[in-house]
Amino acid sequence: MRISALSEETGVPVATLKFYLREGLLRPGHRTAATQAQYDAGHVERVRLIRGLTQAAGLSLAEVRSVLAVLDDPPADRIQLLAAAQEVMIGMEADEGAASVPDGENPWPERVAAELAQLGWECDPALADRLAAQLRTAVDAGVANLETTWPEYARACIRVAEADVASVPADLEGAVRQVVVGTLLTDPVLATLRRLAQQVVSTRVPER
Amino acid sequence: MRISALSEETGVPVATLKFYLREGLLRPGHRTAATQAQYDAGHVERVRLIRGLTQAAGLSLAEVRSVLAVLDDPPADRIQLLAAAQEVMIGMEADEGAASVPDGENPWPERVAAELAQLGWECDPALADRLAAQLRTAVDAGVANLETTWPEYARACIRVAEADVASVPADLEGAVRQVVVGTLLTDPVLATLRRLAQQVVSTRVPER
Repeated sequence: MRISALSEETGVPVATLKFYLREGLLRPGHRTAATQAQYDAGHVERVRLIRGLTQAAGLSLAEVRSVLAVLDDPPADRIQLLAAAQEVMIGMEADEGAASVPDGENPWPERVAAELAQLGWECDPALADRLAAQLRTAVDAGVANLETTWPEYARACIRVAEADVASVPADLEGAVRQVVVGTLLTDPVLATLRRLAQQVVSTRVPER
Repeated sequence: MRISALSEETGVPVATLKFYLREGLLRPGHRTAATQAQYDAGHVERVRLIRGLTQAAGLSLAEVRSVLAVLDDPPADRIQLLAAAQEVMIGMEADEGAASVPDGENPWPERVAAELAQLGWECDPALADRLAAQLRTAVDAGVANLETTWPEYARACIRVAEADVASVPADLEGAVRQVVVGTLLTDPVLATLRRLAQQVVSTRVPER
């Protein structure tokens, strides 16, 4: 198909497609004339992936680039796959989520580590630190009871992660795609499901 | 305390505090001289809330303003509280999450409505539509199996929502704060817990 058809198929303007091509996010089409090229189903898929990552998952172009790099050159070790893919994703998010609060006496990292140990969770320390910072920000912003209720959320997330892990496909490319893209793109889905579930649960709980 | 102490206590630069004051997000301090004012614990709390909403939850100033409006003037009807607070939050997020894909034949809204009915979920149609758009974006971007696995995520989110609803405090102001601020600020906490839980679950699942 021509670039205009690729635009129609994906809903992405031609100018944006040309930008993706210039930036090397999208491989060039098959050139049929000096000013014309043909694009195929692989291009459609890649454009939808880039669009999903930027619009739905809110990634920057630099972050999209690192996701595409993992997809195009996945780690060879099947066993370490989830861990490796997760590492890329987590590294990418490293600076997000936590407000910069003055450090002072900060009991959160220790408290979180103790609670995670009690849950029997062996975790990436960087991720545990991020959790501590996010909890602190939320509690400081007035969500006081999160201080005691967050382990209940942790238990609920085990069920989410079970669904994540059960759905990882057997093939390597599919598995990396599932872990990185799937996790990023289902975060907003989960946020919406949570709000829907709040409506369901709050109408079944008796008024107090 | 003086504005410099408020800045130290909250980690927010004086220039930013002055901006919050000019924008009316923060009420003026108690004026003690032509160029000096005193601030109290209420100011500290409010600054942390604004900071949490902008930095951790990623809200725009206009969105922060509407959250503060609900907090400062909560709905009077206790029974409708969760619903009312949720409505503000959901309205605020209305344009987020979904990539603009061409509509064409779009089976998603109908499919999602049927599945939600089967789960026995009675839901806000606007929220169900948002879910349909997010699922479509994710599936189009290559997360194919989400098409069949998302009801499992819905069931997992019931557990999250149970924790949400159980922790809503009895007092009105606390309840609104919990629903609006709590939900927005625990979204990132849940995303991190999900990644931690993936590590826990993937190490306990036998290699296939």
